[in-house]
Amino acid sequence: MRIAVDAMGGDHAPRVVVEGAVRAARELPTTEVILVGRTPKIEPLLREFSDRTGRVRIEHAASVVHMGDSPVEALRRKGDTSIGRCAELAKAGEADAILSAGNTGAAVAAAALAMGTLKGIRKPGIAAPFPTMTGGQCVVIDVGANVKPKPEHLLDYGIMATEYVAAILGTPNPSVGLLNVGAEDAKGNELVKETHALFRASHLNFAGNVEGRDIFKGEVDAVVCDGFVGNVLLKVAEGVAEAVLGTIRNALMEKLIYRIGAGLCRPAFRRLGGELNSSAYGGAQLLGINGICIISHGSADSKAISNAIRVATELSDKHVNDRIVETARKLKSKTQAETVSA
Amino acid sequence: MRIAVDAMGGDHAPRVVVEGAVRAARELPTTEVILVGRTPKIEPLLREFSDRTGRVRIEHAASVVHMGDSPVEALRRKGDTSIGRCAELAKAGEADAILSAGNTGAAVAAAALAMGTLKGIRKPGIAAPFPTMTGGQCVVIDVGANVKPKPEHLLDYGIMATEYVAAILGTPNPSVGLLNVGAEDAKGNELVKETHALFRASHLNFAGNVEGRDIFKGEVDAVVCDGFVGNVLLKVAEGVAEAVLGTIRNALMEKLIYRIGAGLCRPAFRRLGGELNSSAYGGAQLLGINGICIISHGSADSKAISNAIRVATELSDKHVNDRIVETARKLKSKTQAETVSA
Repeated sequence: MRIAVDAMGGDHAPRVVVEGAVRAARELPTTEVILVGRTPKIEPLLREFSDRTGRVRIEHAASVVHMGDSPVEALRRKGDTSIGRCAELAKAGEADAILSAGNTGAAVAAAALAMGTLKGIRKPGIAAPFPTMTGGQCVVIDVGANVKPKPEHLLDYGIMATEYVAAILGTPNPSVGLLNVGAEDAKGNELVKETHALFRASHLNFAGNVEGRDIFKGEVDAVVCDGFVGNVLLKVAEGVAEAVLGTIRNALMEKLIYRIGAGLCRPAFRRLGGELNSSAYGGAQLLGINGICIISHGSADSKAISNAIRVATELSDKHVNDRIVETARKLKSKTQAETVSA
Repeated sequence: MRIAVDAMGGDHAPRVVVEGAVRAARELPTTEVILVGRTPKIEPLLREFSDRTGRVRIEHAASVVHMGDSPVEALRRKGDTSIGRCAELAKAGEADAILSAGNTGAAVAAAALAMGTLKGIRKPGIAAPFPTMTGGQCVVIDVGANVKPKPEHLLDYGIMATEYVAAILGTPNPSVGLLNVGAEDAKGNELVKETHALFRASHLNFAGNVEGRDIFKGEVDAVVCDGFVGNVLLKVAEGVAEAVLGTIRNALMEKLIYRIGAGLCRPAFRRLGGELNSSAYGGAQLLGINGICIISHGSADSKAISNAIRVATELSDKHVNDRIVETARKLKSKTQAETVSA
């Protein structure tokens, strides 16, 4: 598996990206990493983190799409950007996957344009794993690729989530819930009502409507929603987790006795930090494109980057895209057969 | 101020509702509480919590809208429900406010139907306060009254949030953000793009687009969104807070040394529990109706109920509804004047 990594994307780029890439190459014996970006910036870091695998190389790209840039405009205007070059490498067949912790919109636009969508899939969506209270994960799709989807796009997300969860998390026949404002079938706006009917008729393992709270309960494997709602959800979840942990941290610094108590609990807090931290999952995946595109968090550390490269390797090894195409084909031929026999 | 309280609504009703009502009457010398529901259930509790103010009375209602019931259908079919009777008391001028910790949809439907909307306001919305990292609050409206609003409904929410925050939290000229998937003006779906233009032209203290994370940063006083997104947001925030605190609790029970450490920190944890707990705010408010309707959380305890009654008293004392009508009138006459002069 060859992965083109946007070395310039993310709050701590290029340092943590190069470090994560070197670590991934060491841990994944069949993975080749192409670090894309400004060679003079990347080269000294690659020496510093001393890659000995010979499977990490640099591909120069002169400019960078920054976090605040308008994605499509920046891709056009700036010319040779690191994320744009990653996508070109994939298009040219020189990379099987791309990875960026930079501007999400730019990564989505570049990947979708260069790779195209999978056969039978109408729109790509971003799948993001959330930790659950039962120690597992719940994958939410879409967290921001498509803010105005149609019901059939959400059905495609259900297919993609099913195959992603089955392959990457090893869950047989994963359950998929539809995010709504209540559990009853008749709830919600027009989009979810129409989507509900599509899912009911679909033969996916449909868990019915679920509410925002259910994502964290561990009772459903995947949750489907439109990209506007999903993006708000993702950022609210991050905001609440930060606020709760920050408030606890401040409260425990107030008195000496609390600081002593917190000191005794430090290993537990440290482990928790790891569990709640998104770095364990490496990032979100843009599913539905004819290739692999991982979108890491802007705050990704080197561990998150190397985990993201590991996930890309698994997506490739387990042929998730082939499975998505096959399931979409089966679903559609079933629906057609039923329409004909009806 | 006379408030009709749905004594049968909520996970711990009628016990905590009666307890909260008695406490509120003791603390608020001008407030009269009418406990609405099954007299044989309420009477013994009222004796147990020994009201000595003489300002708590019972109004019998034979049936209850349960949490799982379809709101409008249940209100019709069940006849004399506790929440329906609360709304009737308000309609008849026998109560200035109503309060329920039961089925939210039923409370919204009953209140909107019986009280009607305020002059100049097109749709009511539910405003919910969220604690921020800076120790303040951010009010989000709408968290579920209207899952398919138009841009002008969201503008009305902005007016309502402004006057609510100014009156209840004492913030002069509160800032109002529009919930979106990014800070740039051009982001989002059609609804938020059109709403953005309305807010820009409005003379409200518009903070522009905000993201889900910003709600908890304390940089904006109120956030406006559609009821579908707001309801998901509310439940995700609750789910994450529960999951984080639950995970911490479990981790701190694992070893004796952690339990000792956690024991030293107990007063800090207890205070935090209070800060993060929604009971401090009493509940959400249905704003935009010609009256006062407080919707408490299903898990409300007696403290949450008495706080909700206190908030209802403040909404009444500070004439929030008059202020909303006045601001809506000014905004519309300004817009008309500008249209004429243009």
